[in-house]
Amino acid sequence: MSALRFPNLPPSEPQGSDLLTQERAKTTFSVHELSTFLYGEAYLERQERLLTLIENEPAFDKSDRYFLGRTERFAHALRKDHAIVKMAQKHQWTQEEFSHAESLIDEAGPFGLHRGMFMPTLASQGTEEQLEKFLKPAQRYEIIGCYAQTELGHGSNVQGIETTATYLPETDQFDIHTPYLTAAKWWIGGLGKGANHAMVMARLITAGKDYGPHAFVVPIRSMENHTLLPGVMAGDIGPKFGYNTTDNGCMWFDHYRVPRISLLAKHSSIKPGTGEYIKPPNAKLSYGTMVLIRASLVGSARNGLAKAVTIATRYSAIRRQFVDKDSPKMMGKEVVETPVLDYSTQQYRLFPIIAAAYACFFTSKEMMRLYHLNIKNMASGDFSLLADVHASSSGLKSLTTTMAASAIEECRRTCGGHGFSLFSGLPLLLQDYAPNVTWEGDNYILTQQTGRYLFKSFRELVAKRASGNFQAGQINNPTLAYMNTFLENPTLRCPVTSAAQFYNPEVQLAAFGHRAASLVAQIVHALDVGKRSWNSMLVDIYNVSVAHCQLILVQNFIMGIRGEMPQPEGYVTPPLATEAKEALTDLSDLFALHTIHKQPGEFLTSGYLDAPQVSMLGEAIMELMEKKVRPNAIGFVDAFAFPDYLLNSAIGAFDGRVYERYTEMATREPLNKTEVVDGYENYIRPFTNPKGLKGRTLQSRL
Amino acid sequence: MSALRFPNLPPSEPQGSDLLTQERAKTTFSVHELSTFLYGEAYLERQERLLTLIENEPAFDKSDRYFLGRTERFAHALRKDHAIVKMAQKHQWTQEEFSHAESLIDEAGPFGLHRGMFMPTLASQGTEEQLEKFLKPAQRYEIIGCYAQTELGHGSNVQGIETTATYLPETDQFDIHTPYLTAAKWWIGGLGKGANHAMVMARLITAGKDYGPHAFVVPIRSMENHTLLPGVMAGDIGPKFGYNTTDNGCMWFDHYRVPRISLLAKHSSIKPGTGEYIKPPNAKLSYGTMVLIRASLVGSARNGLAKAVTIATRYSAIRRQFVDKDSPKMMGKEVVETPVLDYSTQQYRLFPIIAAAYACFFTSKEMMRLYHLNIKNMASGDFSLLADVHASSSGLKSLTTTMAASAIEECRRTCGGHGFSLFSGLPLLLQDYAPNVTWEGDNYILTQQTGRYLFKSFRELVAKRASGNFQAGQINNPTLAYMNTFLENPTLRCPVTSAAQFYNPEVQLAAFGHRAASLVAQIVHALDVGKRSWNSMLVDIYNVSVAHCQLILVQNFIMGIRGEMPQPEGYVTPPLATEAKEALTDLSDLFALHTIHKQPGEFLTSGYLDAPQVSMLGEAIMELMEKKVRPNAIGFVDAFAFPDYLLNSAIGAFDGRVYERYTEMATREPLNKTEVVDGYENYIRPFTNPKGLKGRTLQSRL
Repeated sequence: MSALRFPNLPPSEPQGSDLLTQERAKTTFSVHELSTFLYGEAYLERQERLLTLIENEPAFDKSDRYFLGRTERFAHALRKDHAIVKMAQKHQWTQEEFSHAESLIDEAGPFGLHRGMFMPTLASQGTEEQLEKFLKPAQRYEIIGCYAQTELGHGSNVQGIETTATYLPETDQFDIHTPYLTAAKWWIGGLGKGANHAMVMARLITAGKDYGPHAFVVPIRSMENHTLLPGVMAGDIGPKFGYNTTDNGCMWFDHYRVPRISLLAKHSSIKPGTGEYIKPPNAKLSYGTMVLIRASLVGSARNGLAKAVTIATRYSAIRRQFVDKDSPKMMGKEVVETPVLDYSTQQYRLFPIIAAAYACFFTSKEMMRLYHLNIKNMASGDFSLLADVHASSSGLKSLTTTMAASAIEECRRTCGGHGFSLFSGLPLLLQDYAPNVTWEGDNYILTQQTGRYLFKSFRELVAKRASGNFQAGQINNPTLAYMNTFLENPTLRCPVTSAAQFYNPEVQLAAFGHRAASLVAQIVHALDVGKRSWNSMLVDIYNVSVAHCQLILVQNFIMGIRGEMPQPEGYVTPPLATEAKEALTDLSDLFALHTIHKQPGEFLTSGYLDAPQVSMLGEAIMELMEKKVRPNAIGFVDAFAFPDYLLNSAIGAFDGRVYERYTEMATREPLNKTEVVDGYENYIRPFTNPKGLKGRTLQSRL
Repeated sequence: MSALRFPNLPPSEPQGSDLLTQERAKTTFSVHELSTFLYGEAYLERQERLLTLIENEPAFDKSDRYFLGRTERFAHALRKDHAIVKMAQKHQWTQEEFSHAESLIDEAGPFGLHRGMFMPTLASQGTEEQLEKFLKPAQRYEIIGCYAQTELGHGSNVQGIETTATYLPETDQFDIHTPYLTAAKWWIGGLGKGANHAMVMARLITAGKDYGPHAFVVPIRSMENHTLLPGVMAGDIGPKFGYNTTDNGCMWFDHYRVPRISLLAKHSSIKPGTGEYIKPPNAKLSYGTMVLIRASLVGSARNGLAKAVTIATRYSAIRRQFVDKDSPKMMGKEVVETPVLDYSTQQYRLFPIIAAAYACFFTSKEMMRLYHLNIKNMASGDFSLLADVHASSSGLKSLTTTMAASAIEECRRTCGGHGFSLFSGLPLLLQDYAPNVTWEGDNYILTQQTGRYLFKSFRELVAKRASGNFQAGQINNPTLAYMNTFLENPTLRCPVTSAAQFYNPEVQLAAFGHRAASLVAQIVHALDVGKRSWNSMLVDIYNVSVAHCQLILVQNFIMGIRGEMPQPEGYVTPPLATEAKEALTDLSDLFALHTIHKQPGEFLTSGYLDAPQVSMLGEAIMELMEKKVRPNAIGFVDAFAFPDYLLNSAIGAFDGRVYERYTEMATREPLNKTEVVDGYENYIRPFTNPKGLKGRTLQSRL
């Protein structure tokens, strides 16, 4: 029987494409100028150029993505990973071009960790000899590696891993071994099927002493035919909530021998023969990579927020439901249903997410600048930035990835039923984004790093102030600055007496600063005076990290719009036209005020705000959303410049043809290939027509 | 090549099974007694009996569930739906036995809506003739129906649906038609492939007048061979975030004719010939079903909460990470890592979810009692309960399903990486639970119903109090009671002066009552005096509905433990032993206090609580969790009595053999059927061994 064909009907009026055109006409700024400010002209040009190549390569086709089971999706990703390497070789792509292409194809594959972790770790911790032996063939994809750190029983606590690498002086080898089931390597991206080498983190044991986790380059599959090497067992760990295009794997070693050169030896090494351990010169050097990854996750949080809210905002401008009786929407002389984007709840749910995406943009940029500056400083022996950057990158990774994961789900819900369809693009985005909240430092555990730094800074500041020769002018660090302002006047109250006064960056910054410092002071008091245990304070520590990092987001947003942020070396931010600046200021106001309004508790308990002010804040937000943000909503999301190919969404495409695209996708559902379902004979007909009767006699009920 | 075999190693000490045994020894109450209190002896016995049958039926086997793609999962569900009907027929199951079996198998299939909506709608709105003609064959599964209400362009606003049913007096038929693409029926469970009839909601048009949506029984597929009938086009709408075992479908009508008997005519009907419309006697009667569905969703929220937290709590008692230096965990003389359940953040994330599951239990029971009482009252013409029950069921559906959806995701995250594996059971639970927040009334829109009722009650109460002859003793409704208490003294402040005083139900109830009433008063003032538009108040209305419903949850929890809840007719709650009562009181305290602590804003702005009290509240919670709830955590989740077969979780099974079960599941991953991945020759070897070299020469790098 042939495939089903759905009728070719138009949607009822007004059409989605017309609605989006009307929305775009309301935008007060140039969308292209704002996109250019965000990405730079070169990026946007590159995107166009890459899209042409990518959309014409069958291995990068997305039309079956939502219909494939896990096995097929992995097969697709393997094919894609091969094709992208070939394309990159053919066009001699730079690293930037490669990453940009990957982000457009948006399908994590088996070679992702080879590029993302295996080669970078080699590059930063390998000796010249090791670079020659391992990195060069890795760059040619002869060696395909993975990064094997997490174990079945240990994720967050890397120091607790159980795999051992025991040095054997007699043969100058390491014996790599998995002593328990809990020591099996687990979750290792690319290990399941693709990789032939692994960067294995194992406890280095030499001369009877355990020196904790170290990195070893280990061949795991035959270069001849990809079979597992004797002494190694590895496989795929099975289906996941998302990321099913990657072969996360597990691995066991049975006294597997590798030569001494396997140990990455740029920083620490073993003396052959004696097995004497040579310590790394400075353990802090390894913090650099962590900071880089966490900082880059702020950027990917922005991406997640921006993609989800692009889809949800466009669809909300098209989807109409009920009539707002106080303010009915007219089409000519007829009342039509109100677009859901006009309802204040929908605005309260979506517009702060638009604002959050822009907030993360500025902070992500700043964190990358700080990372590079810190690396440069450390190379010349200056570690002064490290503690601050490490603390804020930890807390910001936690805060922004939590924000993004919640926001993607919220966007999905704002689309009503259709957000539940894979065709909306939102479920898969949510599923693939989800690991961000637990990997690269669990979002709860990470905040302890931020807390420790804040408490230490606070204690030092208090001591310095008490020392007698303190001058506020000495403070050149924004964290100490807000703490000092608080200590100058801990019982300060917010001076605002009208809703409009909240549209003032200084008022916003003062509120966030006072609240964060007040929480720090409370916790330090509880720990130092109240003698509360660290464990009993973990909830408060989580909250103080959030407070500190929200302040950073607000601060960078405000300074970024003003053009007051320091620039990375060799970079000039494109100019921001007045109209775009004004529109972004609305978002910056919304981000700050909504963050307070949503969770005003700490602003109230710190004594800084009072109840009437929270009420004014509510008015300020409603006014801002309705009058300022609503007309620009579509412009703001258009400026993110996500091509339809990337979003792969029936309801969030640029042209607003929601229902047509949705129906077209449904016709491709495999169950619609036949009119009568497989299984009818066995499972339905025995009830509905057990005797196998024919013809209209059976249909005579009506 | 043969399938991979993973090594058979034991996990490192201590073993999960030993840890759970130790946990169970700490429980202060009898788990079986608490289970019996929750479910009754008969339910628990029935569960054992059904499990034996179900676990031995191959069609109900779950071992492949996490590996199947959507097409295979649907095929499995069709087979299952056939098998469960056959089993029910064989064992002459009651409705209760059938539902219980379905909940254990836990796989929504193509016949679900036939039972859940098609037959109930027929039963409540069909005439005797229609029951004979449609319901009887439906009970035999000759007719398999679905419920076709939602359209591509209309979900929440049922009054806006576009499908028409025009009465044709000349032939005494209805012409059913889909005028636009947006009028296509969409999301209809069971329609995609399984159903041969549909209950179609269409605008009844007769004698030139549109009477809005009415229900029509419509044959859609041939009884002979299941092909689509001429004039009907229907298919599956494609893959979804969850619920992929159900064939949600879409449908178009092309001037499709059905006889007059298609219109369900118990309440409203058409006079043959003239086409005169006979109005229903009382439109309110149809609210009954909505109340039932919403009330039952409170029960399914409890289920979602309880399942997720069972898995997460058991795994958290087994998973160890870091050492809590202030209070190290010992095994014999050795320090071992601390189980994550001992960390206060993990407790703060999980224990309130345990408490919320119990809270929903009591309120779900009460809502079902009120539903039945209201139906009985309405039958005798008494509509006095309806408004209150309708308002609270709307708000509670919104609140509890939002709570459950967030909690399932939170539980998933508390399991770290392993919560991301489908084997944990949590992703599929989350995905299948997700539609609850948008279906049966979107969780934002619903709160307007609750708000309207609260504002009306408040205005009437204010008027009555102003009338001069008001006596507080006249109030016999808990909503009016808390509003009246507030009006008696709107500036009342919480008298608590120490953390321990918060463990007092009266203190908790007073706080929730004051906060809810204060919000109602503010909104009524803004609407009536401030002349704010309804749309501009929607966020506040959402919040007031939450506040009102949180109070209901707290109230029912407290009264339920005390044995003060009215009992449904003919039902006696099993006794609750003192130990269990005490333990449940800890949870009731935790539920109330954590709800305030997590979002203290409104309690503060209403002036009822102050900053020092919120701080005491925090202490009260931490003390309660560490001292009282922690020892009983495993007991509380064991009492939910979910069999391993139901949970289908590697990490949440009763025996605590987390890592063994997890590894065993991974061996069954289809990608592990071969050692070398399909696609190696095409996509990997061209990089790693392009010349097809053989032997150890290639492996000589080390």
